[in-house]
Amino acid sequence: MLDISVAAFNDRGYDATSMGVLAERLGTTKSAIYYHVAGKEDLLRLALDKALDGLESVLEEPGARNGSPADRLRFVLRGAVLVLVRELPYVTLLLRLRGNTELERSALERRRRFDHEIATLVDLARADGSVRTDIDSRTITRLLFGMINSIVEWYKPDGSLTPDQLADDVIAIAFGGLQQPAER
Amino acid sequence: MLDISVAAFNDRGYDATSMGVLAERLGTTKSAIYYHVAGKEDLLRLALDKALDGLESVLEEPGARNGSPADRLRFVLRGAVLVLVRELPYVTLLLRLRGNTELERSALERRRRFDHEIATLVDLARADGSVRTDIDSRTITRLLFGMINSIVEWYKPDGSLTPDQLADDVIAIAFGGLQQPAER
Repeated sequence: MLDISVAAFNDRGYDATSMGVLAERLGTTKSAIYYHVAGKEDLLRLALDKALDGLESVLEEPGARNGSPADRLRFVLRGAVLVLVRELPYVTLLLRLRGNTELERSALERRRRFDHEIATLVDLARADGSVRTDIDSRTITRLLFGMINSIVEWYKPDGSLTPDQLADDVIAIAFGGLQQPAER
Repeated sequence: MLDISVAAFNDRGYDATSMGVLAERLGTTKSAIYYHVAGKEDLLRLALDKALDGLESVLEEPGARNGSPADRLRFVLRGAVLVLVRELPYVTLLLRLRGNTELERSALERRRRFDHEIATLVDLARADGSVRTDIDSRTITRLLFGMINSIVEWYKPDGSLTPDQLADDVIAIAFGGLQQPAER
């Protein structure tokens, strides 16, 4: 039920997806849906938790907490790519939120905290010389996320590019781009 | 009228923005809007043309047509960043399209042709050794666009980062990431 609801939200936009549309996509009635959840916002909450729990769990792993800042950054970026691919429709929904309701704003706030942890790793890696210092660290972080988050828009889970290869490619391009220009 | 309509589409999603909502945002009546346009799809068409005409015009400039593939790629990426920033709300609308109508699909097709021109430059630059060959060129192109397109989600036109500085930063990170690993 959650999978199909999230697919509908992603196809039409959450705001434009009524309970009537959901019932049709689920092949059931509105009252049958209301038997399970209080409304479509409950479905949104469950879906956003799935995406955010996945991303946040990456930060709890030992690889995200131990080692050099560059190694930790590499670990977290790889983990984020793998979560994006594993929870593709859920992260897609998260990334398309506009923050129109309290629930959406609180999910965006959790996402900002996740982004902030990565910005901190970028700062640490700049401080020890493993990431270029000629570009503002917020710009670096945002462009990195832009690259990674775009995966939800184009990655085909049934294509030939495996999640691990994709993660390797992202890390190779990102760390190439983040090196001090003098080192090249 | 177009500016305010596009802001409403971007805030709420195009599908969820009714003519009633548009009238309210414009401080006018639905019939006053219908005096100027046949419906909200006309507004969408005008807005998408503005974004696409801007992007396509970059490809017509001499810098996009002459020089080495790497120089042409650099020119086009810089031009794309500057159009994104100049036409921010219009490109935002374009990038959020889901392709639910004929008009949306035809705009997405024009955007795909633009992306395809850049993919061709990436291929040419790979062929002459100026872009890494260890990563699939479609993956490279998509990650590049992901980075660049993300600008519409976070760039603040009234902030301290100028469009030219942003374009420099994007080019520096992108070309760092695209170099052959052996060269570093």
